[in-house]
Formats: sequence, structure tokens, C-alpha cells
Amino acid sequence: MSQWIYFFDLWGTAVFALSGALAAGRHRMDPFGVIVLASVTAVGGGSIRDALIGATPVFWIRDPNYIIVILATVLVCLLLVRRPRKVPEYILPVADAFGLALFTVIGAEKALNMGLSGMIAVVMGLITGVGGGIIRDLLCRQVPMVLRTEVYATASIIGGIGYTVSLAYGMGEKMALFLAMASALLIRLSAIKWHLSLPAFDLKTKRE
Amino acid sequence: MSQWIYFFDLWGTAVFALSGALAAGRHRMDPFGVIVLASVTAVGGGSIRDALIGATPVFWIRDPNYIIVILATVLVCLLLVRRPRKVPEYILPVADAFGLALFTVIGAEKALNMGLSGMIAVVMGLITGVGGGIIRDLLCRQVPMVLRTEVYATASIIGGIGYTVSLAYGMGEKMALFLAMASALLIRLSAIKWHLSLPAFDLKTKRE
Amino acid sequence: MSQWIYFFDLWGTAVFALSGALAAGRHRMDPFGVIVLASVTAVGGGSIRDALIGATPVFWIRDPNYIIVILATVLVCLLLVRRPRKVPEYILPVADAFGLALFTVIGAEKALNMGLSGMIAVVMGLITGVGGGIIRDLLCRQVPMVLRTEVYATASIIGGIGYTVSLAYGMGEKMALFLAMASALLIRLSAIKWHLSLPAFDLKTKRE
Repeated sequence: MSQWIYFFDLWGTAVFALSGALAAGRHRMDPFGVIVLASVTAVGGGSIRDALIGATPVFWIRDPNYIIVILATVLVCLLLVRRPRKVPEYILPVADAFGLALFTVIGAEKALNMGLSGMIAVVMGLITGVGGGIIRDLLCRQVPMVLRTEVYATASIIGGIGYTVSLAYGMGEKMALFLAMASALLIRLSAIKWHLSLPAFDLKTKRE
Repeated sequence: MSQWIYFFDLWGTAVFALSGALAAGRHRMDPFGVIVLASVTAVGGGSIRDALIGATPVFWIRDPNYIIVILATVLVCLLLVRRPRKVPEYILPVADAFGLALFTVIGAEKALNMGLSGMIAVVMGLITGVGGGIIRDLLCRQVPMVLRTEVYATASIIGGIGYTVSLAYGMGEKMALFLAMASALLIRLSAIKWHLSLPAFDLKTKRE
Repeated sequence: MSQWIYFFDLWGTAVFALSGALAAGRHRMDPFGVIVLASVTAVGGGSIRDALIGATPVFWIRDPNYIIVILATVLVCLLLVRRPRKVPEYILPVADAFGLALFTVIGAEKALNMGLSGMIAVVMGLITGVGGGIIRDLLCRQVPMVLRTEVYATASIIGGIGYTVSLAYGMGEKMALFLAMASALLIRLSAIKWHLSLPAFDLKTKRE
């Protein structure tokens, strides 16, 4: 079972590395800069999680496969782009949505595994899911996706709560993992496609 | 006695969460985004402090009250704003000033409590006091308050030195706590009100 | 031998603190703000490294000399500028280049010393070398140097690989240290002087 989680974790690492590499390409960075941005995006959230919990050395220091997956992703990305092709605008947020969904559930799972409470597990899912993307957007001087209104943090929090509650009600780990990931992903992808958003907390208009 | 500190710590958490929620409202974030920004502002500084010291899992993982205080603050903030009302421009820096003063002294206290030196205690007070606000301002793409000239880091450093020195000279913990907080707060509030600033270190004008 | 490394480490701390103070001067910060920016630049990368590895309390908490070097550097910097003088544009990137080279090799050395693998040592060198500068640039709302094309991450990665490989092939520690530092420094300084850059990974032009 934990092999499933490991597989999803490496998969999430690859899609977040891809989102970092795409962001790097939009800023015309050199190959080593691409590696740096892909890496912080892919392992940033999990590193913050592990440092806060005290699970040090953090996961990618203990297991070299994460760095290998990132290097391979960047290599493929750099090679593919040699043959010029259109990179549609939506690829970056979609890759980011997959990473968000996968890492949210994996972060929550790791917290529960360490005996932390359900509430903390949801927070750790959120940190793991949004941390890397926030660092990527800060470095690229973009407005962090989590700050925009299209249910970003919402998707992660619902995914984390879904996973924690499903387990608490006795659902099997594999099923809970799949359902929570699918919900978070669907919510986020729908939000991207139809520009859904929750009502904003808007102080600007109250100030005039 | 340490109950006093705990009370001030939760109070500082609430005012920093408020400052994060206000900043989120100015960026028209959705409710979950507000929670995220309020949380990183409220626990960001203390989390960095605990991670650097190695006091992990960090404080809010060990004690759920911090997250509960943040969620309650955000809830009150979201509900109050339903009835449109003017939010004066100065509310955000004033809430920030209270958090700065409270967290500076609490951060210094925690460091001393762990047997660290007075100099490190001042630094830990500074990190606890300014860390959350820096993260908030970075995420909102504002110039971090600590970068502006209105005695921001200064207030924190003086508060931290005041607390450490008062204790070293035998003042009671409660009195030292109160005096140091009041000094940092007064310095910062005066600076906001009268736009006080120390002479700037200005390389620009030397370059022509 | 480890005394050599300690000396270089304090030297790197001073040049990075200088680069932080220079950046602060360009933003007209007050003296305490200068101290804050000089400090996060000087110890930011090493602090992230130590927190990720779990070497806590981090190095500058255990050894007060780092903070003393930073305070002394800032003091000298503030005093010198009293006599107005031109500060040439290239001083900041050059100081940054020295810090980059020194901290890369020291970061790799510390990782190897803790029994971590060569690959992780290169990554730790990179984090130590570029971390502080990234935080400095983020706080000053500059495009982080690591995002620009002039072989920045490249210099650090080559320096880290050079050090690790030299040791693996039996070179003496002092010689490997010196050679790797010199290579990273030369690469970066050449890039600054002649605006060298690797071919960029450019997605923008592929999108039309």
C-alpha cells in the first residue's frame, strides 16, 4: 500500500518539477536555473513540512530518487523543446493542479502516519500542496496562485479534509487516497476551466 | 507567570492573524485564501524561530490552540465585514505593531528559556516579531514593512534588548515583559503616527 | 585544516553581509534595517541548509562569531559611507560572487562531513551558496540573480561538483577547497565581466 503512495509522490514530484521548468522557460533561464526552479517547486512544500515537523534530514536527502526524478523531468523538458512547438497557456496551471492534488493527500498521509491529529494533517497537506508553487511564483515574481480567487487553497483544504475524514470513517487507505486526490483535482480543474471562485473577502470596496 | 506569556502569545497570534486577514481583504482573496494568509502571518515568525533552534515539531503543531485562535479571528473578521464599514488605512500597520511588540518579547523569552545567550535571544525576538509580517508582505507583493524606514526592525531590537537586559539586572519577569512590550509598541506606534525614521543608509545619492 | 574552512566561512559571511548592506543602502534603509538585510543575506543559505539536514540549532546560534562578523561588517560599511564616495554598480554582484564561491564549497564540505552523499553535497553547496542572495533579492523586490541568465546557479553547481569529485579522487582537502572556490569564482566573475550566458530555455518564443 505505501508503495502506492510512494509512486504518487514521485509522480507529484515530476509534475511539479515540470511546472517549475515551464515557469523557468517563460523567464528564459539557463539549464541550471531551470534545474533550480524545478527543484524548489517540486520539493519546497515537502521540505517545509518536514522541517516544521522535525522529520529531518528531510525526505529528499534520505531518498535520492526525488532528485533523480527532477533531473530526468528537466532533461526531457529541455530536449522536447528543441523542436519548437506551441506550449498552450493552460499547461502550467494544469500541471500545478495535479501536483497540488497529489501532494495535498500525501502530506496529510505523512502527518497522520507520524501520529499527528487530523487538523494538523489537513494543514500539513496544505503546506505540502501549496508550498512549492508559492516559492516558484515568488521567485518568478508572479502573483502566487494561492492569492488568486480561483479556489486554490480551497481545493487543497477540501482534499485534506476528505482524506482525513474518509480514513476516520474506516475507508480503506487506497480508496481514501484516490477519492481525495480526485476531488481536489476535479475542484481545481473545474475552477481553471470555468473560472469558478468563492465570493471574495473584499475590503477595498468598503473603504471608499 | 508563564500563563501570562501564553496569554500574550495567543493575543499576538490573533492580532497578526487579523493583519493577515486585512491584507488578504485588500487583495480580494477568497475565504480559504484569507485563512492561509492569516495563518502564515500569525505563525510564520515563530515557526522559523523553532525550526532554526530545533524546537520541533514547532509550537503550533504541539498546541492546537494557535490554529483555533487564527480560525476564530478569520471567522470574526469575515462576519464583521458583511456589514460594510470603512476600514481605515492605519488599522493594518497598527495591528502589525501590536503583533511585533508581543512576538518580539515572547520570542526572546522562549530563547532565554532554552538556555540561549542574550544576543541570540534578541535575534530570536526579532525573527519572531518580523518573520510573519515579512512573509505576509512578500506574498502580497508589498514592500516588506521591515524595509521601510519607519523604525520597524529598530522597535523590535530595542524591545528585545530591553527585555534581556531588564532580566539580567534582576527585574521580575512579568514587569520586564510588560515594559519591553510597551517600549517596542510605543516606539513603533509613534513612528507610524509622526512618520519618524532614523537617518537612512543611502547609497543612491552617493553614486552620481 | 578545518581552521581554514572556518576562516573562509567567516570571510564568506562578511562578503555576503556586505552585499546585503549594499542592497539595503540602495533602498535607503535605516541602520537596523541594514543589519537585518545583511544578516539574512549572510546566514540565510546556511540556515536553510542546517534546517533541512536537521543540524539544529543552526550554526550561528551555536557560534556567536558569525553575528559578530556581520555586525562589524555593517558598522564598517555605515561608517565608510559617511564620507560620500561613488559606489560602482558592479560592487554588489562582485561581493555576491565571492560569497557564492566560498559558501558553495563550505556547504558541500559540511554535507560530506555529516556523511551525506556526493550528490546531496552538491545540492547543499548550491543551497548554501544561493540561498542568502535569493532572500536578499526577494526582500528588495529585485529579480533574484539566480533567475538571470549569467551562469549563477551554474557556477555554484560546477564548484560543488568540482569539490566533491576532487575529494573522491583523493585530492587533499585544502587543495580541493581552493581549486573549487577559484573555479566557481572565476566562472561567475567572467560571466559578470563579459555577460556570458548559457543558451536559455525559452518557451516564450515557442508560443506564438
